[in-house]
Amino acid sequence: MSRGLFITIEGIDGSGKSTHASMLADYLNERGIPSVLTREPGGTRIGEQVRSILLDNVNSDMAAMTEVLLYAASRAQHVAQVIKPALEQGKVVLCDRFVDSSLAYQGYARGLGLDTVKTINEHALGGVWPDITLLLDISPEIAWKRILKDGFKDRLESEGLELLKVVYEGYRNIARLYSDRFYIISAADGVNDIHKKILSIIEPKLKKYRLI
Amino acid sequence: MSRGLFITIEGIDGSGKSTHASMLADYLNERGIPSVLTREPGGTRIGEQVRSILLDNVNSDMAAMTEVLLYAASRAQHVAQVIKPALEQGKVVLCDRFVDSSLAYQGYARGLGLDTVKTINEHALGGVWPDITLLLDISPEIAWKRILKDGFKDRLESEGLELLKVVYEGYRNIARLYSDRFYIISAADGVNDIHKKILSIIEPKLKKYRLI
Repeated sequence: MSRGLFITIEGIDGSGKSTHASMLADYLNERGIPSVLTREPGGTRIGEQVRSILLDNVNSDMAAMTEVLLYAASRAQHVAQVIKPALEQGKVVLCDRFVDSSLAYQGYARGLGLDTVKTINEHALGGVWPDITLLLDISPEIAWKRILKDGFKDRLESEGLELLKVVYEGYRNIARLYSDRFYIISAADGVNDIHKKILSIIEPKLKKYRLI
Repeated sequence: MSRGLFITIEGIDGSGKSTHASMLADYLNERGIPSVLTREPGGTRIGEQVRSILLDNVNSDMAAMTEVLLYAASRAQHVAQVIKPALEQGKVVLCDRFVDSSLAYQGYARGLGLDTVKTINEHALGGVWPDITLLLDISPEIAWKRILKDGFKDRLESEGLELLKVVYEGYRNIARLYSDRFYIISAADGVNDIHKKILSIIEPKLKKYRLI
């Protein structure tokens, strides 16, 4: 069975994930490479329903474990309904945030520990781990300025710079643990330069997978 | 620290759980025993939001693992926000469905296996297991007639008699596994007779816990 390429884009809020996911999707489309651009939390109708619970400002009394399990639930649906079928059809799946967001936010920032969050998420993934994870690396201070400029968007972003700092350190640790699939990309440069860096990582993989 | 008594009521749909939870709550109130009557899925604002996703007829494409994780998420919030605080205040907590519903429905009926569902739920419970579980035992055929009389209510109940049969067998197996806390009550008798049977189990425990 042919299997597509599963690419995830990670980083703290304000690091430019959505911009670069979208630019990479355009690149794939222009070359006629079958691909799916998706995001978490969400990515499915059920996942979007879960997302609205997670990002609702009213739900500030959410227990840390509830948060982990809701993200994992959304992810399980996303894998079953979108990611796994697309990979089985040989497509490139491009996902804006995935399991490493849970490891960084809940495992590190919420203090639940990497093992607990990993165990729960292994059930959600059912073996579908990313082939490549692009970590957009930007200092929490710069990211925070960007977020403030855009205005507070949801419950998580309103928790501020301190959260960003812990999540940032979490991501760095996770990248070390999963160094085989992680690529750290400095995201302090201009958008086009960052995009070029991303392509320099992705193109050899696309060739290896015979997608170009 | 004094700790209250945690009672859960389980059984297939149509077994009379809500009726008997309510009657037992009335009994406790009349005697001035501090208690909390709650239910799953739900029991908290966040839990009710999750409940509405779970019971939405549109969501028939929900993956089995998504279902397990959503129930567990709702449960984690319920434990953290309602059950644990009430037990710490020495109250009786009376819960209409709890972890054994997941073990029976997802572990058995959805075929995910008891171990997977138990592992995920252990995280949700954080050690808060029921002291007493009352299993209202009624044949799936009789329960199904009751459900048909009431009209189809939600996504789960619309799956029919075959589901009830598998869940019924699941409950019987779980009751054997956790025989220390499970009490099987024949629910084929009249409502008042069943209530008396429940009191004959609960009253000695209330005395033991010095609640009466």
